[in-house]
Amino acid sequence: MGELRRDPVVNRWVIIDPERAEREAVFPIEEEAEEPIPCPFCPGHELEAGKEIVALGEPGRAPNAGGWWVRVIPDRRPILRIEGQLDPRPEGMFDLMNAVGAHELVVETPEHDKHWHELSELQLERVLKVWQERSLDLRKDERFRQVLMVKNYGQATTLFRHPHSHVLALPIVPKGVDEEIQGVLHYSRLKERCVYCDILREEIRRGKRMLLESSEVIAFTPFASRFPFETWILPKFHLPDFGRITGEEVKDLAAVLKAVMGMIQTSLAFSSGSLILHTSPLQEYHRPEYHWHIEIVPKASKVAGFEWGTGFFVNPVPPEEAAAWLQEGRQARLEGL
Amino acid sequence: MGELRRDPVVNRWVIIDPERAEREAVFPIEEEAEEPIPCPFCPGHELEAGKEIVALGEPGRAPNAGGWWVRVIPDRRPILRIEGQLDPRPEGMFDLMNAVGAHELVVETPEHDKHWHELSELQLERVLKVWQERSLDLRKDERFRQVLMVKNYGQATTLFRHPHSHVLALPIVPKGVDEEIQGVLHYSRLKERCVYCDILREEIRRGKRMLLESSEVIAFTPFASRFPFETWILPKFHLPDFGRITGEEVKDLAAVLKAVMGMIQTSLAFSSGSLILHTSPLQEYHRPEYHWHIEIVPKASKVAGFEWGTGFFVNPVPPEEAAAWLQEGRQARLEGL
Repeated sequence: MGELRRDPVVNRWVIIDPERAEREAVFPIEEEAEEPIPCPFCPGHELEAGKEIVALGEPGRAPNAGGWWVRVIPDRRPILRIEGQLDPRPEGMFDLMNAVGAHELVVETPEHDKHWHELSELQLERVLKVWQERSLDLRKDERFRQVLMVKNYGQATTLFRHPHSHVLALPIVPKGVDEEIQGVLHYSRLKERCVYCDILREEIRRGKRMLLESSEVIAFTPFASRFPFETWILPKFHLPDFGRITGEEVKDLAAVLKAVMGMIQTSLAFSSGSLILHTSPLQEYHRPEYHWHIEIVPKASKVAGFEWGTGFFVNPVPPEEAAAWLQEGRQARLEGL
Repeated sequence: MGELRRDPVVNRWVIIDPERAEREAVFPIEEEAEEPIPCPFCPGHELEAGKEIVALGEPGRAPNAGGWWVRVIPDRRPILRIEGQLDPRPEGMFDLMNAVGAHELVVETPEHDKHWHELSELQLERVLKVWQERSLDLRKDERFRQVLMVKNYGQATTLFRHPHSHVLALPIVPKGVDEEIQGVLHYSRLKERCVYCDILREEIRRGKRMLLESSEVIAFTPFASRFPFETWILPKFHLPDFGRITGEEVKDLAAVLKAVMGMIQTSLAFSSGSLILHTSPLQEYHRPEYHWHIEIVPKASKVAGFEWGTGFFVNPVPPEEAAAWLQEGRQARLEGL
């Protein structure tokens, strides 16, 4: 089993997992793996893909048979394993624990090779409902501190073309979320307001970085974007926990996600990237001051070591220009150009 | 001029620079640039490369002529510009300033296409002396809060093969260094000791992650390595500021760097990566509790958005195994196998 190890300076947890397949790619020769044929996520291959944890489908369908709309299965190459004890322990001055957690795969549609903007709003709504269900179910396991949803889209970042996303339950709070929480708490002590609520008011008022506003959420390119065309989706009404969104909010978010992914896909020459759902940690780490949101980075760029080593980013595309470019692409699409 | 913008949640400064050449690569088509021929960093092309800021060379040589060992010139595509006022200002709730700073290029040897492990110890010592000189000189400009040295080696991360490194003077403390400082201060308040001093004692005692120990520094693969074969070099005697190292320490560090880069180059199938010098910030941000060090990440890996979005890394190579692999490569080389 892999280990979770804590960096003693910056308190960052890292998974050290010598059993991973990526290992082959690192040491000694890098090779591109090929997509398996036939696709195990297509209908008719349910048992190859894996026994389902939960599924949405036609009424009365049997588990692991056809007729599903969205299926959740265990990931075949999990970065965290559900079995076993965490066993947190010291090693000299260092801290580690077993890499216990959950790593599930959401097969988002029976249709092979569709981008999110090509799915129907109803289908995206089903995916989001399944994300919510997994968030609510996994938190019953008291070992878990954080549930994360990760969607890698396009070729560069994933082996399987069939639309899918990852659900991870972690026994620790990842550094990225923890930093946001520290920022939220600091701002809240200073101003008695949520920093994300302030950001969304500011973006609505200024407009120049806005992509879309619906009744429930806004989509925009953030002021200090690290990456070209970085996009955030924020709920307009303060809510720390994605697990608590209403059916109306899910429906509205699905429509906005479809539109935003469409703007990104039709406006940019590259078609891969990542989408991550940030939501409040669980148990005693839950923070009512937090504000769940989605961050999209179109393209998992090759980043120079400078940015890794310093946490300091150089972005050649101002977010205002990115917003205008994405809006133009949308306009052209609406006009059928 | 570019802008420095602060993320209002996590206090991360980002450079937004629409004048950068990388822009072409992002939007709309990615293209690999080709190395210019002849190489402007080779002897005989001094004025094409740029007027020198400082140089080490044969006694009595004229500036911008031949006979140099190491030359420092302004970067042709600076991410920060020396001219102009910082003009820090609000934009609604956001904070920004002009991207004022220094961006210099150190041409590390007259010889084209040499890796660091192929340079003589004397030549590496000269490079480190020039880094130190730039650190001491740039801090005279009171606008600057941080000097960073960055060396990208190998093909993947740099346009020019000719050995060179970057010296950056920033008007802000980059998030990566700031996080380390917060960690150092927290640990110091808890234990009245430096966390880096504790780490180096621990690594020397355990040995299983050690690469090299000299009279002045140790090189090892850190306990919670984010990347396969990540390597740190720490001075054995507490010193916050690289600018204050002695001539003896520079000489010793040059020998260790040559040996470590040799281990990395001969043991791994990939030959690119980054080396970053972390040192205490300047002016009122200087911290005597800090401990300067070097971080080497062999290979600027293509990282999935998950890691960007969460600050949570999966590393398939345990640092103990990386250390053993690098040691074996060194042994084989010493034995002439």
